[in-house]
Amino acid sequence: MGVVMKRPTPAVSQPATLAEIARAAGVSAPTVSKVLNGRADVAPATRTRVEELLRRHGYRRRRAEASRSPLIDLVFHELESAWALEVIRGVENVARDQGLSVVLSESAGRPTPGRTWADQVAARRPHGVVLVLSGLGESHRALLTSRSIPFVVMDPAGDPGDDVPSVGATNWQGGLAATRYLVYLGHRRIGVISGPSQMMCSRARLDGYRAALETAGLPVDASLIRAGDFHHEAGHRAGLELLRLPNRPSAVFAGNDLQALGLYEAARELGLRIPEDLSVVGFDDLPVARWAGPPLTTVRQPLTEMAEAAARLVLDLGRGERPPTVTQVEVATSLVVRSSCCRWDAENFTEAGGV
Amino acid sequence: MGVVMKRPTPAVSQPATLAEIARAAGVSAPTVSKVLNGRADVAPATRTRVEELLRRHGYRRRRAEASRSPLIDLVFHELESAWALEVIRGVENVARDQGLSVVLSESAGRPTPGRTWADQVAARRPHGVVLVLSGLGESHRALLTSRSIPFVVMDPAGDPGDDVPSVGATNWQGGLAATRYLVYLGHRRIGVISGPSQMMCSRARLDGYRAALETAGLPVDASLIRAGDFHHEAGHRAGLELLRLPNRPSAVFAGNDLQALGLYEAARELGLRIPEDLSVVGFDDLPVARWAGPPLTTVRQPLTEMAEAAARLVLDLGRGERPPTVTQVEVATSLVVRSSCCRWDAENFTEAGGV
Repeated sequence: MGVVMKRPTPAVSQPATLAEIARAAGVSAPTVSKVLNGRADVAPATRTRVEELLRRHGYRRRRAEASRSPLIDLVFHELESAWALEVIRGVENVARDQGLSVVLSESAGRPTPGRTWADQVAARRPHGVVLVLSGLGESHRALLTSRSIPFVVMDPAGDPGDDVPSVGATNWQGGLAATRYLVYLGHRRIGVISGPSQMMCSRARLDGYRAALETAGLPVDASLIRAGDFHHEAGHRAGLELLRLPNRPSAVFAGNDLQALGLYEAARELGLRIPEDLSVVGFDDLPVARWAGPPLTTVRQPLTEMAEAAARLVLDLGRGERPPTVTQVEVATSLVVRSSCCRWDAENFTEAGGV
Repeated sequence: MGVVMKRPTPAVSQPATLAEIARAAGVSAPTVSKVLNGRADVAPATRTRVEELLRRHGYRRRRAEASRSPLIDLVFHELESAWALEVIRGVENVARDQGLSVVLSESAGRPTPGRTWADQVAARRPHGVVLVLSGLGESHRALLTSRSIPFVVMDPAGDPGDDVPSVGATNWQGGLAATRYLVYLGHRRIGVISGPSQMMCSRARLDGYRAALETAGLPVDASLIRAGDFHHEAGHRAGLELLRLPNRPSAVFAGNDLQALGLYEAARELGLRIPEDLSVVGFDDLPVARWAGPPLTTVRQPLTEMAEAAARLVLDLGRGERPPTVTQVEVATSLVVRSSCCRWDAENFTEAGGV
């Protein structure tokens, strides 16, 4: 197998055995086992060499289900997300039904010296991993694959790749529905506060917004499109910019609920009433959307159900019950109409223009 | 040791060994081990008998630290709590620093048949358990103690008992500060929406409210005291009741932030402006308090810091580093003044009374 060491290409037709990996790495089989089990007592250089060989050979551990811990890992990029709790609940629901417990980690932030979250996951041998991440690196993916630990990416904000099992929402459809609703109410100047452009979900929502305007024969005015980062402060800042325009929008699709609340604050500061002077639509339908004043009309993304779907999918994959062709799931979004939007006609605008 | 079987009192001066427990229960030592390790292959009746003996004898497993899993358990009564995420973040911060992962469970809801959360915790052998519970049952407490798994109760909403290590906030002081602030602003008719009376934290906040009124020489009017359950809907319902009184309060201490938001909604429905017609103070300082319209003045309970303190305390207990006398921690609360309160005098009242 030494020959493989000289070939940098990842494709090797025949999966290698553990003994072959050990030989190629010039180490003993127990050392390869230690690496697979995430043990700390392996020299870093050895670990790197073994991991690289596992990856190149597409090694997959053959492990009986019984040797797995009764755990399911849930990995967030960071726990700051306002909707983390909805996701945790969903995974917890499925885990409890299956007699499993949920282990929570963050992939960002201070890592434990010398060990990544992926090493820790590998050492725990969970039934599966649900990743709430903007992207899954090639090395982490290889690490989980070599341990035969199934994984599913939830709400792929990045672009997980066609071959990564994932659960997302119909973001484009949601952006379309939000904007069409505002068009239906008579709005013609409709602003948008988008999320970060590197996140596929915010691109999709923005494209849905554009599609709604274009199919209604309305112009897409670049001055009404602002970029945010899905946080409250961005909604406030971009909201002030939009509402101070000489020809300000009468309605704004806020990209998500937190940005909508930031926009609420901007409107309050400028003495604009919601919905009389400004209609607002959010995205997510976090609990806080119901509690806003006035209650926020928003596109519901069923986060708990999506997390449940991701957890069920990863357990199915672990049992080999799901053919790989149906591992990309998109859960439907729906518009929840509350009190933050109203009809708009020329008179409104003249009246409100004087504020 | 058979004599102990006949004595129903829990006090036994000399801790028993595992072999003695086994003899008293009429089972083998490995069977007692199985019970201690949370294994499922023990008859329920045997398990109950062994657990009872472990409890009576105050058995404590002598286990080397090394045999613990690199986990810390975080058990919620239920994950519905709006501030669960703040607590999770705090425990996660400490766990990551120590190279541990966090396992999340709910003690309420559907249990796995035949196994409680406590059995599962025992089987995992974590470094410690942080419990976010209204109370810890005697049997669960005995179960954790017999396995030498240290535990700390966070935010004891019930009454954990003097000998249970706990981390809470100065709830009485917070209720006092909230109400004194309203008195300072000139309010004389100050309502309160309390939490459930069986929760010690809501009793303490209500007592702080009463103390503020009494020390200011103001009457405590029972018609201005309403009971809620710390949820938005209760704040809305109790808020409508208070604001529809013939002689309605000019200010309300809402008990927590979610009830404050429910009160906001009640005020909106009745056409009352905050703060001009009604001053509101919350409790908790959840992120949503900043985002409310107007931003909510509230008593900050540093939940993330409290959870960090609880996690550090439980790890210290596990290492035997903390003398048992300092295991009850109360973290200070502080009033965060935003925009939901204003000065009040007789003129306001006459004017607003006409609404």
